[in-house]
Amino acid sequence: KDSYSVTLLPGDGIGPEITSATVGALNALTSHTSWSINFKESLIGGAALDATDNKDAFPDSSLEECRKADSILLACIGGYKWDNNPREARPETGLLKMRSEMGLFANLRPAKVLPQLIGASTLKPEVITGVDIMVVRELTGDVYFGTPKGIDVVDGERVGYNNMIYKESEIRRIARVAGEVAMKRGGKICSVEKSNVLDVSQLWKEVTIDVMEKEFPKIDLSHMYVDNAAMQLIRYPKQFDTIVTGNIFGDILSDEASMLVGSLGMLPSASIGSSGPGVFEPCHGSAPDIAGEDKANPLAMILSAAMMLRYDLGRGEEADVLERAVEMCLDEGWRTGDIKQEGDGCTLVGCKEMGKKVEAAI
Amino acid sequence: KDSYSVTLLPGDGIGPEITSATVGALNALTSHTSWSINFKESLIGGAALDATDNKDAFPDSSLEECRKADSILLACIGGYKWDNNPREARPETGLLKMRSEMGLFANLRPAKVLPQLIGASTLKPEVITGVDIMVVRELTGDVYFGTPKGIDVVDGERVGYNNMIYKESEIRRIARVAGEVAMKRGGKICSVEKSNVLDVSQLWKEVTIDVMEKEFPKIDLSHMYVDNAAMQLIRYPKQFDTIVTGNIFGDILSDEASMLVGSLGMLPSASIGSSGPGVFEPCHGSAPDIAGEDKANPLAMILSAAMMLRYDLGRGEEADVLERAVEMCLDEGWRTGDIKQEGDGCTLVGCKEMGKKVEAAI
Ligand SMILES: CC(C)[C@H](C(=O)O)[C@@H](O)C(=O)O
Ligand SMILES: CC(C)[C@H](C(=O)O)[C@@H](O)C(=O)O
Repeated sequence: KDSYSVTLLPGDGIGPEITSATVGALNALTSHTSWSINFKESLIGGAALDATDNKDAFPDSSLEECRKADSILLACIGGYKWDNNPREARPETGLLKMRSEMGLFANLRPAKVLPQLIGASTLKPEVITGVDIMVVRELTGDVYFGTPKGIDVVDGERVGYNNMIYKESEIRRIARVAGEVAMKRGGKICSVEKSNVLDVSQLWKEVTIDVMEKEFPKIDLSHMYVDNAAMQLIRYPKQFDTIVTGNIFGDILSDEASMLVGSLGMLPSASIGSSGPGVFEPCHGSAPDIAGEDKANPLAMILSAAMMLRYDLGRGEEADVLERAVEMCLDEGWRTGDIKQEGDGCTLVGCKEMGKKVEAAI
Repeated sequence: KDSYSVTLLPGDGIGPEITSATVGALNALTSHTSWSINFKESLIGGAALDATDNKDAFPDSSLEECRKADSILLACIGGYKWDNNPREARPETGLLKMRSEMGLFANLRPAKVLPQLIGASTLKPEVITGVDIMVVRELTGDVYFGTPKGIDVVDGERVGYNNMIYKESEIRRIARVAGEVAMKRGGKICSVEKSNVLDVSQLWKEVTIDVMEKEFPKIDLSHMYVDNAAMQLIRYPKQFDTIVTGNIFGDILSDEASMLVGSLGMLPSASIGSSGPGVFEPCHGSAPDIAGEDKANPLAMILSAAMMLRYDLGRGEEADVLERAVEMCLDEGWRTGDIKQEGDGCTLVGCKEMGKKVEAAI
């Protein structure tokens, strides 16, 4: 293929700024390649709510655009403006609809500590040096989408409930993704659940063991309860290579793991399905407090674009180039506010300038 | 009252050792008071399974003993021996039965950083100095006890599920406990849930707001999503005073918070109901790897006994004495293996000796 179509979902807050820095970096990259990328923008989140009279945070028109594309780059969503909307009219609801409608059942969230930013973490340097964890989070099941759910009145009082539920086939396919990911890494998987209490976790554990035994006999599989995992991530993070877990535990643990790295501003993620385009997005939120002020860190989105090149467009070499360009910028001492530390001798730059530095490094 | 009855549940692993150190400390304390404590042992966990032919990890005889007592001191449960039992015959199942049968709906887990042990944490000293968090975890509801639950076969494949469910009255009573606790502390509560996704969390949030507005108007109430809370506990733990949350989120976050303190070996907890005796226990597990070797740290259980004196026996002054005795031992430089650090100039002691040091300090 010599031309790819990529749908851009700039979303809200700092989204448009980091999207344009990312597009700049990708254009700089493809000016050296025989292939090119065509970008097309679509709406999601608050931007989509504004455009649809608060009806849909991921309109069908956006869904169609996404389905047609070779891949999707999402910036971030949400903001004060929509915070008090009912759940149906919240930016997050668009994100959940996108994941579900596009079948993006696997969320890959690397937490790799960069030597240049080792001081940015609240953990001691000796604890986090060399940490390189990949969290493989299931993304379209669990208590997020389980039914029955709702708020009913029973015996004169309200009762709220959501079903924490997994089918064998759902566990099987995420375990396979984890197996494939781990085979390309350290070959070690820690499956995180709460099987000492929950039936759904019991099934999770059994199916995970079955998949690994039959399909990935070389994988070193271990099991950990989610409460212990939350502890071990802080106590001794180097013990982890690949973590596989359900949607809600993965939501919590991947955010926790991101703190090892110091700043969310550096963390990319990939959401992929069994076929069709994936969605690549930074782990951070839309930071409405600094939106429009050219203070945002575009590097997590640029690193997400690298994941897109590698996973969706099959352009691993160019992904490497992009990742190395980001590292070069850090080595050269360029820092946005979120990763700047007192007395680090580095130079504070804005979002635009950081984008230009990456382009130059390419 | 001049005599209290306390049921001891030594449980498994290091349980018996730390129980006898704790009883020693309590006896030393009551040798100076006009009132006394009568201890009676009962079975729970693996010890109970062994005695009942793997039938019941909390037999009705233990339940009766506990109900009759003024308070209950639990050490810890579990061990390799029972790890592969089916869930009905696991030590943890006894714990869950105890909580539920005795109506212990509120679990208080303080995470207070002690200046003497500041170096034991993997977090930087400046991040944790002064941290003093109380996690108020709901303990008898949520996905832990929700029905329907099970593993069924649907359309030819297994499906595992548990219901994440809260009634308004359950949320109301735990919010009240949090309100009372917070009024005696910094007056600040952070309610942790996932109301951007879950109906049950939406209800949690609404009811919590209602309780605070009507019954605790002076409380400074804030709300945080559980993924963000997992992050903020590491990023800037000093922002928290009292955290109130559901059973599973509390399970995860209280274990995470305990890592701020450095060692689980120092952390007490209290589980209380609306009437009847409470259960006081250390947060750590049964450490089967060092069981019987006189290496365990009895201080978390001794601090749990202090919580018992304060909450169940109404002996706050004596609770203070016990807590100060523990601090004195640390100041004097006595350390069990789990809190000993290289080059700290402290003296390594065993479980028994640490108990004696506390007795002496009293
Ligand atoms: C915004 C929210 C619905 C979402 C989630 O919980 O999945 C976010 O926290 C994430 O991790 O992508
Ligand atoms: C042993 C287990 C069932 C228990 C729980 O999950 O509640 C434990 O982790 C705790 O926090 O007391």
